[in-house]
Amino acid sequence: MSKAYVVGAGQSDFGSFPEESYRSLFTTAYENALDSVPSGVSPGDIDEAYVGTLGVGGRQLGLSGPAVTEHVGLDGVPCTRVENACAAGGYAVRQAVMAVRSGMADVVLAGGFEVMTDVSGESVRYWLGVSGETEWERLSGTTFAGVYAQMARAHMETYDTTAEQLSRVAVKNHENGAKNPHAHLQFSCSLEDAQSAPTVAEPLTLYHCCPTTDGAACVLIVSEDVVEQYTDDRIRVAGVGAASDAVGLFQRETYTGIPASRQAATRAYETAGIGPEDVDFAEVHDCFAIAELLAYEDLGFCDRGHAGSFVESGATALDGELPINTSGGLKSKGHPIGATGTGQVVEVFKQLSGRAGDRQLETPRYGLTHNVGGSGGAAVVHVFERERERDSRTTEVDQ
Amino acid sequence: MSKAYVVGAGQSDFGSFPEESYRSLFTTAYENALDSVPSGVSPGDIDEAYVGTLGVGGRQLGLSGPAVTEHVGLDGVPCTRVENACAAGGYAVRQAVMAVRSGMADVVLAGGFEVMTDVSGESVRYWLGVSGETEWERLSGTTFAGVYAQMARAHMETYDTTAEQLSRVAVKNHENGAKNPHAHLQFSCSLEDAQSAPTVAEPLTLYHCCPTTDGAACVLIVSEDVVEQYTDDRIRVAGVGAASDAVGLFQRETYTGIPASRQAATRAYETAGIGPEDVDFAEVHDCFAIAELLAYEDLGFCDRGHAGSFVESGATALDGELPINTSGGLKSKGHPIGATGTGQVVEVFKQLSGRAGDRQLETPRYGLTHNVGGSGGAAVVHVFERERERDSRTTEVDQ
Repeated sequence: MSKAYVVGAGQSDFGSFPEESYRSLFTTAYENALDSVPSGVSPGDIDEAYVGTLGVGGRQLGLSGPAVTEHVGLDGVPCTRVENACAAGGYAVRQAVMAVRSGMADVVLAGGFEVMTDVSGESVRYWLGVSGETEWERLSGTTFAGVYAQMARAHMETYDTTAEQLSRVAVKNHENGAKNPHAHLQFSCSLEDAQSAPTVAEPLTLYHCCPTTDGAACVLIVSEDVVEQYTDDRIRVAGVGAASDAVGLFQRETYTGIPASRQAATRAYETAGIGPEDVDFAEVHDCFAIAELLAYEDLGFCDRGHAGSFVESGATALDGELPINTSGGLKSKGHPIGATGTGQVVEVFKQLSGRAGDRQLETPRYGLTHNVGGSGGAAVVHVFERERERDSRTTEVDQ
Repeated sequence: MSKAYVVGAGQSDFGSFPEESYRSLFTTAYENALDSVPSGVSPGDIDEAYVGTLGVGGRQLGLSGPAVTEHVGLDGVPCTRVENACAAGGYAVRQAVMAVRSGMADVVLAGGFEVMTDVSGESVRYWLGVSGETEWERLSGTTFAGVYAQMARAHMETYDTTAEQLSRVAVKNHENGAKNPHAHLQFSCSLEDAQSAPTVAEPLTLYHCCPTTDGAACVLIVSEDVVEQYTDDRIRVAGVGAASDAVGLFQRETYTGIPASRQAATRAYETAGIGPEDVDFAEVHDCFAIAELLAYEDLGFCDRGHAGSFVESGATALDGELPINTSGGLKSKGHPIGATGTGQVVEVFKQLSGRAGDRQLETPRYGLTHNVGGSGGAAVVHVFERERERDSRTTEVDQ
């Protein structure tokens, strides 16, 4: 089984871009990913591609993967569209890793895109709703925010989590996003802003919900056989884990956690040979503020029920012991559905390769990404490790 | 790289089933696949799942993979939806092979489903249309039959292919399908029927077009490490090839062939270490009669331009030198989009394991499947080999 390395990653700006198409956004992300590879990469080197998208607005519901790879000149390269709702991008990355490990490809593109801001609010509700259970949630009138609101309410009732703790997630992520030139909402929000914003679905206010966003993000993953052609860096995909679950929240074993996240994390830690205590920073799936709190617990960053006090302690701030969502997260960076999972890897790549600008962490070694589909029907977790430079004198390099 | 083996495969009946749901059809296919494994397989053995579907009718557009695997009790198992239009199922199989070869899974389920007959004709046209190019084909009024009609016209003009030769594809496939108890259209059609049927898109008549169909099909693929737990048969995935291309026909280099099919076949033959002359039978993507003729040429079964006379010669009949679409093909067995690619593997599995009933070929060794997305924006080809029983005295076993 070949090891898999990330040699490049790039994104378009995330935001609202009425003058762009899904193809133009994908092209920008693709070119930025290629440009980020230290020794360059030729499109002809790419053996395989995976593209994650939900297809919001129904703009190219079939063959939407090949529709973007043809546009960047990769016709001929096998391209597979991967869709697991909001986790489409994370699963595209996982497939890319698998392709490399299988020996069937040496250089694989994992991309994702979504264009969401040119459709009506009604249409956005529909397209978010399709990631929930159709018959018993969407067609019964439950919105996507409503599903997460039920989880928030359950967590508050069970663990005394407070609305203010939810707001602290928003404040932190906006603070990080304000430092990210590619983020959708590049502004700070105060605790008061978050607390007093209009309610979307009780107890979630507007600032407890991520925006709808246009954007694309691409990652290049290669085998150990070819990695040295592209870079002296060694950003290894150390661990991969994924799990599915019932699509409808009402069918799951708990409302105060996401079992698929727990299972995916357990598998990712096992394959990486580390535990949550070894993670230096993480991009987690904060589509709603409660989702970030659940992630803290599901990923083992704090004990069950303690996520509220964990964020309140500042532990997950940019200067905390375990910075979470240094990019701004879905909350501030934005959530262009199919691009979110690949976009998380872009941030980890930047942090591990020292390109994160004003958000740069000092010397992170392990970065984690956590991407959830729907309200937990699927989840995928990756652990990335910054190996030291290859050097014969260095014997403690983690393999 | 572990070798990958097919140890089981099963399908629901293909047809029109107003009383069924996508979940119930998938369940039937899943159970039939499990039941086909000689030593049985426990659901708990399944490490990974891929599900192909286009999502016709929009019934569960997000997380449609997990929505069916949860229903059969596989929640927890990572399930990824794969969509490459009509090739979704074939790509699901390819991902399953990759998962096994990567060492990340030992037992993988590749499934597909579609429910199409409960939506209006207008809606079917829309859903088939989404697999074409959106802006320049579908929204400009080009139907899916219209795209293939352009290819048929081009082939007829360039190579003197005749409408009667197109009809011979229909006659042959209906003859095979009439022997398949799971086929949608289990009746013969005469040359006169096919020739005189109403025109759908000149020169294609109704009998030159496959029906819209409900159905599901599942395949179980395992690693060489575990294959002997399940069966003494050795039906190996000997070759895999895939390619993408421009989604719109008008952007492609030729109208008289499908370049992605050619590339996919070349790669599949290379990885299998065989040539088209070694193939004993094949299931090819005959969504329209012209598509089967193009496949003959793209897969190297006959010379370019000779497909019409090749079918006319009887070479591809059940008792011919190279039987094609022994199942009845998309034309007679039916084309439930996401299930078509996995359904092709069901037929190959049956033929190679001696379970094809009245359609059984004598002693096939190599079977091929060929699955096309849209009008050629993606294609995937698999070569399956029936290895001899493991026997230390047999030294000529192909590895």
